[in-house]
Amino acid sequence: MFDQITILGPGLLGASLLKAAKARGLCKRTAAWSRRAETRAKCEGQPWCDAVFTDVGKAVAKADLVVVCTPVDTIVPLLEKIGPKLKSGALVTDVGSTKSLICRHGRAALPKKVAFVGSHPMAGSEKTGLDYADAELFQNRACFVTPLLDTKAKDIDRLTRFWKALGCEVTTTTPEAHDEIVAHLSHLPHMLASALCAYLSTRDPKWLPLGGPGLRDTTRVAAGDPAMWKAIALENREEILRALDGFQQELDQLRVALHNQQGLALQHILERGRDYRVRLRPLGDK
Amino acid sequence: MFDQITILGPGLLGASLLKAAKARGLCKRTAAWSRRAETRAKCEGQPWCDAVFTDVGKAVAKADLVVVCTPVDTIVPLLEKIGPKLKSGALVTDVGSTKSLICRHGRAALPKKVAFVGSHPMAGSEKTGLDYADAELFQNRACFVTPLLDTKAKDIDRLTRFWKALGCEVTTTTPEAHDEIVAHLSHLPHMLASALCAYLSTRDPKWLPLGGPGLRDTTRVAAGDPAMWKAIALENREEILRALDGFQQELDQLRVALHNQQGLALQHILERGRDYRVRLRPLGDK
Repeated sequence: MFDQITILGPGLLGASLLKAAKARGLCKRTAAWSRRAETRAKCEGQPWCDAVFTDVGKAVAKADLVVVCTPVDTIVPLLEKIGPKLKSGALVTDVGSTKSLICRHGRAALPKKVAFVGSHPMAGSEKTGLDYADAELFQNRACFVTPLLDTKAKDIDRLTRFWKALGCEVTTTTPEAHDEIVAHLSHLPHMLASALCAYLSTRDPKWLPLGGPGLRDTTRVAAGDPAMWKAIALENREEILRALDGFQQELDQLRVALHNQQGLALQHILERGRDYRVRLRPLGDK
Repeated sequence: MFDQITILGPGLLGASLLKAAKARGLCKRTAAWSRRAETRAKCEGQPWCDAVFTDVGKAVAKADLVVVCTPVDTIVPLLEKIGPKLKSGALVTDVGSTKSLICRHGRAALPKKVAFVGSHPMAGSEKTGLDYADAELFQNRACFVTPLLDTKAKDIDRLTRFWKALGCEVTTTTPEAHDEIVAHLSHLPHMLASALCAYLSTRDPKWLPLGGPGLRDTTRVAAGDPAMWKAIALENREEILRALDGFQQELDQLRVALHNQQGLALQHILERGRDYRVRLRPLGDK
């Protein structure tokens, strides 16, 4: 499918992507660049990584596909840096959790001779780092591909086929629609889990061992990297605020029903929640 | 440990309890009563159930340990009904998610010749029904034992040894302390998950397949039985309202930080949440 795939930022997603691409024979060579010497050293010994670069320009020079897997606020500056080094016809994408700013500024940061199309595979985890690299990470996962109006159909198609080959179910939307959807399905749940944990941390520390599996699952995402999530929240601030306000109305209704002991109203909210939850697509063994 | 254990309401918890008790040799005989003919018929064929009763009085008549596993709002009425049928010295407990009302009214509903001590193993699931019975359900789980001031030490001890034998880590608290703790660690997360799902159900249905594993985990508990959770919420109403108000302050701070683009304040909340989450006790393979 590609001669060389280069990953910038081989964390959980980037490393899993190279591992999966190797396992599925989607490229002849893989390459990785990391800002951190420690990460580069770890990459050296990996069977899914053919070459490791200190210089980001050299890392991308021979790549047909470049996937930027660094935190959302570092993606555009990196694209500006690699722009002049990319070979003609290269396809560039990223896996950032926000898309409007990245797609608009990312396209502008790159020369016309390369294609840029944003991606967002819904395959993160609270675990970070290439030690958790998993060739099956993308299996059965939703993946957004977010072209701009002037993106060429053949580039959308190339990128879509790549994610499908990794096991993803691809949805094509505008970057703006992506940001609204993901504010609701990912960023809002994350903010709620973080606020819940931050609140619980103010209560009696003796309660810590007393939670059940429900608390663990409900709050799992709050273990994610705070700096990374701060950047995501700030980049998608307006959509997240809108989602928070919509959620707040629902929570206020639940609170009023409980306060006023309106059993039927309370049960109706719980039923609507249950009906939604049971319709969520199963994710297989993941 | 006991000659006969009788379960009233062999759902997920009750059936798992008998299965675990059998597997660990904690009793000579097991018995179950259910209001529903369908559930009784299912129990008939189970290796962990020696006798099934239509009459609740007959079900408990020969029991040394009776565990009431029905929804919280049905526990006290059931205790009133079985009171005259219990044998002298029998130990009665329940597994309800609220304790203050149940323990006070439950004790009053029973004759002096039997012991009543409340329990709450933190081992539920969004799955319900005896088809999911699992002898390992209690392994590594926190379990509250909630005696009243006049509960005899030997009865607390008998009950504690039973839960420990099932694999639980037992915490002894007053019913009131239990209700405050569980409002925070279980009922509040449940209400948030339900309100989140109820809100998402008002948005574009095309978004349904686009969620990732984070959304699935964060909302898993919202798939629980609405009628059961309505009863729990109403019984523990005051503590849940207090927990909701404390959470709301934290969420308001997060919203303000995001709205005002205060990156440091936002990151601080996310860090406090992360620090709490990573300290939650692992639950083994469950």
